[in-house]
Amino acid sequence: METVPLFVQRGKRVVDLSADFRFKDPAVYEKWYQKHSCPELLKESVYGLPELHREKIRKARIVGNPGCYPTGALIGLIPLVTKGMISYETVVVDSKSGVSGAGRDVALGSLFCEVNEGVKAYNIYKHRHLPEIEGELSQLAKKKIAVSFVPHLIPMDRGILTTLYVNFNQKVKEEDVVNVFEEHYRKEPFIRLHPRGKVPNTKDVRGSNYCDIGIVVDELGGRGVIVTAIDNLVKGASGEAVQNMNIMLGYPETMGLDVVPLWP
Amino acid sequence: METVPLFVQRGKRVVDLSADFRFKDPAVYEKWYQKHSCPELLKESVYGLPELHREKIRKARIVGNPGCYPTGALIGLIPLVTKGMISYETVVVDSKSGVSGAGRDVALGSLFCEVNEGVKAYNIYKHRHLPEIEGELSQLAKKKIAVSFVPHLIPMDRGILTTLYVNFNQKVKEEDVVNVFEEHYRKEPFIRLHPRGKVPNTKDVRGSNYCDIGIVVDELGGRGVIVTAIDNLVKGASGEAVQNMNIMLGYPETMGLDVVPLWP
Amino acid sequence: METVPLFVQRGKRVVDLSADFRFKDPAVYEKWYQKHSCPELLKESVYGLPELHREKIRKARIVGNPGCYPTGALIGLIPLVTKGMISYETVVVDSKSGVSGAGRDVALGSLFCEVNEGVKAYNIYKHRHLPEIEGELSQLAKKKIAVSFVPHLIPMDRGILTTLYVNFNQKVKEEDVVNVFEEHYRKEPFIRLHPRGKVPNTKDVRGSNYCDIGIVVDELGGRGVIVTAIDNLVKGASGEAVQNMNIMLGYPETMGLDVVPLWP
Amino acid sequence: METVPLFVQRGKRVVDLSADFRFKDPAVYEKWYQKHSCPELLKESVYGLPELHREKIRKARIVGNPGCYPTGALIGLIPLVTKGMISYETVVVDSKSGVSGAGRDVALGSLFCEVNEGVKAYNIYKHRHLPEIEGELSQLAKKKIAVSFVPHLIPMDRGILTTLYVNFNQKVKEEDVVNVFEEHYRKEPFIRLHPRGKVPNTKDVRGSNYCDIGIVVDELGGRGVIVTAIDNLVKGASGEAVQNMNIMLGYPETMGLDVVPLWP
Repeated sequence: METVPLFVQRGKRVVDLSADFRFKDPAVYEKWYQKHSCPELLKESVYGLPELHREKIRKARIVGNPGCYPTGALIGLIPLVTKGMISYETVVVDSKSGVSGAGRDVALGSLFCEVNEGVKAYNIYKHRHLPEIEGELSQLAKKKIAVSFVPHLIPMDRGILTTLYVNFNQKVKEEDVVNVFEEHYRKEPFIRLHPRGKVPNTKDVRGSNYCDIGIVVDELGGRGVIVTAIDNLVKGASGEAVQNMNIMLGYPETMGLDVVPLWP
Repeated sequence: METVPLFVQRGKRVVDLSADFRFKDPAVYEKWYQKHSCPELLKESVYGLPELHREKIRKARIVGNPGCYPTGALIGLIPLVTKGMISYETVVVDSKSGVSGAGRDVALGSLFCEVNEGVKAYNIYKHRHLPEIEGELSQLAKKKIAVSFVPHLIPMDRGILTTLYVNFNQKVKEEDVVNVFEEHYRKEPFIRLHPRGKVPNTKDVRGSNYCDIGIVVDELGGRGVIVTAIDNLVKGASGEAVQNMNIMLGYPETMGLDVVPLWP
Repeated sequence: METVPLFVQRGKRVVDLSADFRFKDPAVYEKWYQKHSCPELLKESVYGLPELHREKIRKARIVGNPGCYPTGALIGLIPLVTKGMISYETVVVDSKSGVSGAGRDVALGSLFCEVNEGVKAYNIYKHRHLPEIEGELSQLAKKKIAVSFVPHLIPMDRGILTTLYVNFNQKVKEEDVVNVFEEHYRKEPFIRLHPRGKVPNTKDVRGSNYCDIGIVVDELGGRGVIVTAIDNLVKGASGEAVQNMNIMLGYPETMGLDVVPLWP
Repeated sequence: METVPLFVQRGKRVVDLSADFRFKDPAVYEKWYQKHSCPELLKESVYGLPELHREKIRKARIVGNPGCYPTGALIGLIPLVTKGMISYETVVVDSKSGVSGAGRDVALGSLFCEVNEGVKAYNIYKHRHLPEIEGELSQLAKKKIAVSFVPHLIPMDRGILTTLYVNFNQKVKEEDVVNVFEEHYRKEPFIRLHPRGKVPNTKDVRGSNYCDIGIVVDELGGRGVIVTAIDNLVKGASGEAVQNMNIMLGYPETMGLDVVPLWP
């Protein structure tokens, strides 16, 4: 937030990878992060999830590129919230991230022998990506949504798998839910819906800008599980930033991003 | 179930590691597994979770040793269900297992390059451990409980982390919940409660019969997250079987099981 | 070898990924593999290591694409053998391969829990890539060279690190040896020499067609260690095949191969 | 070396896990480490490899516990050097270590994402364990032995696999070499010889004080490969220290060390 205004004043447009321009409300930012040095710019900055705000991104001067967890969580919930199909009281967001999500800081908790051959939850109810998820969902629902969000650290380099648990507020068939997603994301270049009954593996998207989605509905129970997989360093970070840049500059949206996932 | 009756007829007592004697109701077994060849023995067989049925295990002729996922899930829910503190409509059980949970079958899905550097959910709403979890909880609650259970495969050898999401049916403080667990498990030799605010890593219990528990409560939201960690090959399988044997034979319950976890 | 003649008869040119056209001498092939069904074609087929046989590859009808281990071993030895700088009695080739080197066969030894958290040597003195390494080196040296080759299996998906131990047959400085490599590979698009004192990590070439080389010389001891790193699925297999195809068809040699390594 | 004299002066006996008492010659220590503060104690201190110096350890006041790499390398070479069967000019020691070998220092190079999915060599010709290996071998051979030692870092927690390449100075059969090892280590409680043709995996010794050995001889070529596997944190460190303590105090040598390896 120190440098972005300098660019903007000179007529440049910015995609910011930090959290500084992800929130409309400076109070939320300041509660979870720190004092904001240019809150007036938040009015015009756009949350950079193309699947949600493509048209605003196109004209934005400042795009706040989403966090990695919010990218995976929001993409799995947006169609359901748009349709108002789910209860907003009981959404669970259980995320599993590779270690690169922690950045390259030299910290004890990121040492190989601390992380390898183990899995743990962390920052329960306290992760900074929580207000980002809740904020965007609430705006979309025009109603306050609180989710139960627990991130986990997994012994792998890259990837976030997000398992979303929802309760439908109406009787639905799996087919209906799948159709809602298909309809919603039909034109999205980086969203891939798995065939019915299949759910994605983070390995399927590694190195790519794809977000893969799988849907399983318990029709009798009125419940559903949505699973999304992204590469946190691409769709969850720099790849999404390039996608935003392409949108802002009128380039083909997939330019520089048509990379085949590296498997295995 | 073919061999167990032979032992029992000869006056031997059995701890069975298969699923054949885990269910009271043969219909449930037959729905999820296959035809049962000696359903009459199910009346007397005891579900071998010492933390739940120690006194019955002591005298049982047949103990059905629990599945790995149910062990981690039940231990994290029993105190809350015993006290009737949680809503039974919205329990979520999100489990992350190492690959040894799949056994040593030579299957494509267990190859190193398929599993390594990836994470996936599987058998959503369809895993055979689901009726085991629901059955024991329902019996305890004297009320039908349906949980949302999703197992995940994680690139590590051993360990299951289970993240349990619950909604309290009353106003609670974190301290109260911790006290309920402390009280309930005070005398248990293999249950270790983490200090407040801390949650366990499967790495902390590797090679041991411990089940570690962490508790985080969102007091305002009336929600809680319980995290349990076990080694699926010890507390989730053969270690628990030895524990059951010790109980049945009147040996010290920790005999042969006082192993320090291997770290790292 | 059953299908290649069919293509050739129809005027097609072939890059064969199997071992069937890697050997000049059918007797060697038949000793290590099986009876050869078209030995007459071996006279014209070319061993597809561009760094060694580019001009012959350009005109070849049949190119036998090299094995993964030979690619890493040969690239690290060719400049020294070309210059006749090393003793041919004592060359040691110690290779460490990721598990994808074993292919996708569903075998016990490739299961995650068998391979993870362990390292082992295998096929000592008996690996089928041994005659390939020795054959090409001997041809180049115009003298029979026997190397000590031990492959190892490492718990990772991709990559081969080859550590080569050589004894110089003359007094050399490290600088001299580095110069020999620099000179030899100056125009090679996929060979990258590390700065003096640095040796490569397989992680540096993952997903790419590069072969990275590091050189350390013990000037007093008259010994040297050459380390090469490749991605066994690219430079050690299909990437090299594309490179050969490009050469055969007069395309730019790097076409389709200018991929940045995926890190981490 | 600051604290050890304090203990010794008070009549205590010490097993020191640092490198301070591993060398007879203070000049060697000071070349590779730092100034020695009590070189006079080096005369009496004993190098703590039980398989080499058991009788001296029994009476020693100060035991310098071996480094992890030297433990694996020496155990694989001692029988051959004792018999004078190999050339001393061409011994190659290629070691592959898990990341715990680097200790728990918070360093960039030990971060999960730096180490995972890669393998690298390091400290070629410069590792501090080199003089330890050469020193003990030379003493045993009564002749200066220089080995080519290259340590490698492998993406796993624990374990060192050492691949030793030797040239025999006489005609030998594999059976002869195996017999030499069997004879030499017959009474050793922690040395396990693999059956002919088999070589060990570090996974086989994890968590235990065993050193497993495999032997493969190229009878025609007059060469051999010896592979040893240890757990660097047990036989390569604290386990060996306990073994030394047991010897010094007249306890059963395996006391506290009869742990079954943890597999997988």
